[in-house]
Amino acid sequence: MTPPRSYRQAGVDIAAKEGMLARVRERIRSTFTPAVLGDVGHFGGVVELPALEQGALVCSIDGVGTKTKVAAMAGRGWEVIGHDAVAHGLNDIAVQGARPLCFLDYLGTARLEPEVFAAVLAGMCEACRRYGVALIGGETAEMPGVYGEGELDVVGCAIGVVERSRLVSGQAVRPGDVLLGLQAEGLHTNGYTLARAVLLQQPGDVHRAEPLLGGRTRAEALLAPHRCYAPALLELFERLGGEITAAAHITGGGIPGNLVRVLPEGCRAVVRRCWQPPPIFELLRTLGELDDDEMARTFNLGIGMVVIVRPEAAAAACELLAARGERALVIGEITAGERGVELRAGGPPLAPASG
Amino acid sequence: MTPPRSYRQAGVDIAAKEGMLARVRERIRSTFTPAVLGDVGHFGGVVELPALEQGALVCSIDGVGTKTKVAAMAGRGWEVIGHDAVAHGLNDIAVQGARPLCFLDYLGTARLEPEVFAAVLAGMCEACRRYGVALIGGETAEMPGVYGEGELDVVGCAIGVVERSRLVSGQAVRPGDVLLGLQAEGLHTNGYTLARAVLLQQPGDVHRAEPLLGGRTRAEALLAPHRCYAPALLELFERLGGEITAAAHITGGGIPGNLVRVLPEGCRAVVRRCWQPPPIFELLRTLGELDDDEMARTFNLGIGMVVIVRPEAAAAACELLAARGERALVIGEITAGERGVELRAGGPPLAPASG
Repeated sequence: MTPPRSYRQAGVDIAAKEGMLARVRERIRSTFTPAVLGDVGHFGGVVELPALEQGALVCSIDGVGTKTKVAAMAGRGWEVIGHDAVAHGLNDIAVQGARPLCFLDYLGTARLEPEVFAAVLAGMCEACRRYGVALIGGETAEMPGVYGEGELDVVGCAIGVVERSRLVSGQAVRPGDVLLGLQAEGLHTNGYTLARAVLLQQPGDVHRAEPLLGGRTRAEALLAPHRCYAPALLELFERLGGEITAAAHITGGGIPGNLVRVLPEGCRAVVRRCWQPPPIFELLRTLGELDDDEMARTFNLGIGMVVIVRPEAAAAACELLAARGERALVIGEITAGERGVELRAGGPPLAPASG
Repeated sequence: MTPPRSYRQAGVDIAAKEGMLARVRERIRSTFTPAVLGDVGHFGGVVELPALEQGALVCSIDGVGTKTKVAAMAGRGWEVIGHDAVAHGLNDIAVQGARPLCFLDYLGTARLEPEVFAAVLAGMCEACRRYGVALIGGETAEMPGVYGEGELDVVGCAIGVVERSRLVSGQAVRPGDVLLGLQAEGLHTNGYTLARAVLLQQPGDVHRAEPLLGGRTRAEALLAPHRCYAPALLELFERLGGEITAAAHITGGGIPGNLVRVLPEGCRAVVRRCWQPPPIFELLRTLGELDDDEMARTFNLGIGMVVIVRPEAAAAACELLAARGERALVIGEITAGERGVELRAGGPPLAPASG
């Protein structure tokens, strides 16, 4: 094999990448908040820090997982992928009380496809504008040989700020606190490797309309956006302050794997499966013959966020959340016991005791 | 094909991942500066902001590129890969004057290999400790099907702070300013797709000892670490203040592609190729039959950082850099003209005019 005489021949086209970047530059600028200093294209993105007594920075990095493969199979939904990277990151920092300040993205791929790149960026920028966070940096890496042909990884880093005194860590959680479950849209961005293995085995499966999904296709259900709870959550912290003792973003590991992260020693979360998960989970359970435990440790089961609240504030919290467009249910409580999460069989939804 | 009955059977082993994370937890904690609040495993990493009059946050995200493939071929060098992610990120924010505060990593792979994961993390943590930056967050994603078998992408996000009044943007650059080139160790983390195509075509090439490399193997030269200029650069800004008008981290796009990013309108950088690039570049040029232009737009050519300085401060800057272990050369100057970078043929190294 003749070795390539140029970087482009070797598979990395810097000019094409710069052209693509030039086309999305205006879109990126549209996310700029007044705090942004400088412009697109510097070595680092720069944003002014808000005036805080004693500020803390809260940061999270994560990818959207193999939901990208569903978009590739369906030939659509790339805007959702971009949106999801933002929603996931903002949820991760909002649970600790942090207001989003800026966001950075990383796209890794074998070879950049201009339409896919533009659609992912469009979804990301639209989400950044909606949630008031500036997209101040990013990198798009072409790595043929590392990524499979046509594959894409979408990673986001969310950065926010909070007064140190208002940082939410879960240390105030105590027995008697109530668990509120906030409804999810679907799988969000977790469990896709298993979901694809179950639902997308044959070519054409992705476009299959499912009676169980009310006639929607598998792709439509799998490409439902990752819900961003940050605005509602931040308002909750703002309005109810210390009455909200913790929040857990339900991602990989499901309710047990994530809720445990905010529990102090001696606190046990007892969750009653009293809600109706979206039908995509029933489809997965049935077609995949997955047992309850596997389902609960892999998927969010329709609860994308758990908020822990003092019992006397539960009703007010549910009201506030409802006013913000979030459907919240009492799904359990904190008991004294070994630190951990216990999922119990269902029953009808619980009403919050009026405060 | 029978669908998998579990997330693990589908290729994602959460328990194995948690086990690996538990083994590196102490190492990650060893990077914690006094500013870190909280511990490993929260949704977001938390770090206290330093007291600043009017602070700005500077952030950069980037990957180490396909240098990972060289490490995979050589069966070693994973610590360097981890180190490089940190060095690259800190260089990117230091050019704007920002002191590093925290770092987050993202590792994407088909299937986690415990030894590789541990070595990358070890290199990353060692670099974080050395440069005084806390590793406060990270994600390791197993995505079989997105990544090729045995492949790994290593991404880092560096976050730093600077007083807004001390932010370095290049706006103060003017004709007459001098360009100092800081010596690189090798390719750093750019141009590996082309370098691999030229140097690693046959199995065994990676271990080939090269007379031109002084008997070192190709792997040894290709796995030289990405030099971290941040400590020296920050001292330069601290000590010489406004005399240092800009700095450019030489990454993808080479000297022309990066130096231009810090030039204001009406400023033209004229670079004289008066330095001796490390021999790996000569090997690449010869074996790859690459022309000068291609070389200059793909590789750093042995200059990892360009610092722009007022002529009267050039000698003092070189001295300070030397005291910090950096070899700096005058490689050109800023002239009045169309905004851009011009590379001219060599000549002997220039001495800085004594200040």
